[in-house]
Amino acid sequence: MPSVDRWLLPDGIDEVLPREAVRIETARRQLLDLFSRWGYDLVITPHIEYLESLLTGAGHDLELQTFKMIDQLSGRMLGLRADITPQVARIDAHTLGAEGPSRLCYCGSVLHTRPRALSTSRSLIQLGAELYGDASSASDIEVISLMLETLALCRVEGVHLDIGHVGIYRGLIQAAGVDESTESALFDALQRKAADEVAELAGSLEQASLGGMLCSLVELSGGVEVLDRAHALLDGAPESVMAALDDLAEVAQVLARNYPDVPLYFDLGELRGYHYHTGVVFAAFVPGLGQSVAQGGRYDDIGSDFGRARPATGFSTDLRFLVQRGQIVGADQASAIWAPYSAEAGLQQAVAEQRAAGQRVIVALPGQADSEAVTHGCDRVLTWRDGRWQVVELNS
Amino acid sequence: MPSVDRWLLPDGIDEVLPREAVRIETARRQLLDLFSRWGYDLVITPHIEYLESLLTGAGHDLELQTFKMIDQLSGRMLGLRADITPQVARIDAHTLGAEGPSRLCYCGSVLHTRPRALSTSRSLIQLGAELYGDASSASDIEVISLMLETLALCRVEGVHLDIGHVGIYRGLIQAAGVDESTESALFDALQRKAADEVAELAGSLEQASLGGMLCSLVELSGGVEVLDRAHALLDGAPESVMAALDDLAEVAQVLARNYPDVPLYFDLGELRGYHYHTGVVFAAFVPGLGQSVAQGGRYDDIGSDFGRARPATGFSTDLRFLVQRGQIVGADQASAIWAPYSAEAGLQQAVAEQRAAGQRVIVALPGQADSEAVTHGCDRVLTWRDGRWQVVELNS
Repeated sequence: MPSVDRWLLPDGIDEVLPREAVRIETARRQLLDLFSRWGYDLVITPHIEYLESLLTGAGHDLELQTFKMIDQLSGRMLGLRADITPQVARIDAHTLGAEGPSRLCYCGSVLHTRPRALSTSRSLIQLGAELYGDASSASDIEVISLMLETLALCRVEGVHLDIGHVGIYRGLIQAAGVDESTESALFDALQRKAADEVAELAGSLEQASLGGMLCSLVELSGGVEVLDRAHALLDGAPESVMAALDDLAEVAQVLARNYPDVPLYFDLGELRGYHYHTGVVFAAFVPGLGQSVAQGGRYDDIGSDFGRARPATGFSTDLRFLVQRGQIVGADQASAIWAPYSAEAGLQQAVAEQRAAGQRVIVALPGQADSEAVTHGCDRVLTWRDGRWQVVELNS
Repeated sequence: MPSVDRWLLPDGIDEVLPREAVRIETARRQLLDLFSRWGYDLVITPHIEYLESLLTGAGHDLELQTFKMIDQLSGRMLGLRADITPQVARIDAHTLGAEGPSRLCYCGSVLHTRPRALSTSRSLIQLGAELYGDASSASDIEVISLMLETLALCRVEGVHLDIGHVGIYRGLIQAAGVDESTESALFDALQRKAADEVAELAGSLEQASLGGMLCSLVELSGGVEVLDRAHALLDGAPESVMAALDDLAEVAQVLARNYPDVPLYFDLGELRGYHYHTGVVFAAFVPGLGQSVAQGGRYDDIGSDFGRARPATGFSTDLRFLVQRGQIVGADQASAIWAPYSAEAGLQQAVAEQRAAGQRVIVALPGQADSEAVTHGCDRVLTWRDGRWQVVELNS
């Protein structure tokens, strides 16, 4: 192709220039430190794996999103990771094999064959935390709290939280014993909140009471009062449904107390990630933006494909997106010292000392005059004065 | 495949567990901070690009190393980056377009279809720095110095430095006007230090003096005294060859003064990366290891394919390999505070305060007794004592 085209990047694939990169790096460090203070250990997962491993657990939803290539060494199909969560689950289930609860976190790029939504990126910096080995809502509360702390640290304003529980719909469907195609149609109608279609499909169920409950899911969204309404409307539902409601009530109570400024919105018909989630699901939104800025949920079955089923819950976000939406500021690089070009040993010593003291020092190259210092972001200069090299303000 | 196989990773593709990950993260931060203090700005380049862009500049040596896949959006061939250097060159040449010298650095994963050597990894964390816009040896000296500082920071012991200059061989070959097949045969023989073959090929040249000089390259390796011998043996060589020798002498002089403990080894027949390098080339080795731990060189032509030829020199290393060979220690995570499971607001306040003060606090989940604190790496515990929550030594 002509040289002018060689720098074109594929749609949705971006490069990050210094000004943004330093903000991303700052956020990355502060967030990984935050995770560490909460007891989460960093792991680094591979960018490519055998396709079967990559698509295990988190489900075949990912298959379309995953770039595929041939491994020249084994002749087998490899995938480029489109989600880090299943990899971390494998590390917990297989590699680490801890007995009690374990907490892991990660930060790395993922790539998607297609953008998830119009105008979204295909190359994300996925950052997240996962808690394994505990099935109680205490774990859900911990990871949701950590997600809110993550957003606060990046100074993302106006966050509100959507919470659901896939166990409610699942419990009703299982009790109703519907066939696969009806379930699929119900799921589809519920996602679109198409009340008429849900009513028609639910009306054909043998147990009218369960049909009525499924219909009520369309309406069960709003503030915390939704949980009281649900208790009334779902009275007599299977035990697992009532347990799910109790979970939600506990989560709501603790979050409302600890994060009184974050509005909670419950949606019992919300089935985000239904195919692999098994319990509480949640997502954080900000005003004026259709897609969530961070999201997660419980997915207790994920480890079983790796030989060890463990309760699991976690959240993830796109670090770059977070930095763009938030107000985090990068480490200050506006302040730097200019050093003239000289082989003089005393100057080199002075440069080394300034750097050792944490200063940014840019050493001139042959032919560069001190007048270029400003264009390199320097506000001070190393100058020979009174018999020694001194740092002085520029133009002083 | 059976579940027991699902966790198998492809040969040469690794996952990194917490103990190693924290060391890598520590090294990453310290090195990017080092680069920043030297004036190098961080950029983040895409993991995938159109194959033509990726293989431009740094040369088709990379083609075999690059995983390829189809872009579903454009139908075009994409490559998974096997080297970040050409991407950074594109950012300098095209995106930033600075007039004067510019300094960029990067840290990210690269993947190779085949291991570079037996038992080496196919997934590397490439870390490096590049200096554009200056053709003088001052730039070579700066990037070599920064490479040595990088190794020192990671506490890699016993480093020695190999230095060559592809301009010497190239200048002789161009002056001799040999045909392509002879040049290729000479190159091959020289790389193997096959003196007899070099002599035979060089003996057939029209200008006997140039033939003699080419033969002498096989012998021109060793300490700094090699440069004096070269001046004698290459007397009468084309100007570009003598200029290359002068460059090497200047590099040798400054490095010997600033890094007296690092042995310098010159090899004028060394043609590492000959196809894209254009000047000084260098590599750092440690005892007992055949492959270099860090390497680089000058590649002035790289920007031309992106529409703007700029002088360029830089170095790169594999961060994970560096951490494995070095003695850098990770941030201490052996010290942590255990908090019992309780919804009591005072406890949650105490946990938040400890975390805000930089402490690692692991909160127990339902059913976890304080006796499990040790297995989670805790040495202290939050305890209700004298009417308030206090941090006390474990078992005190």
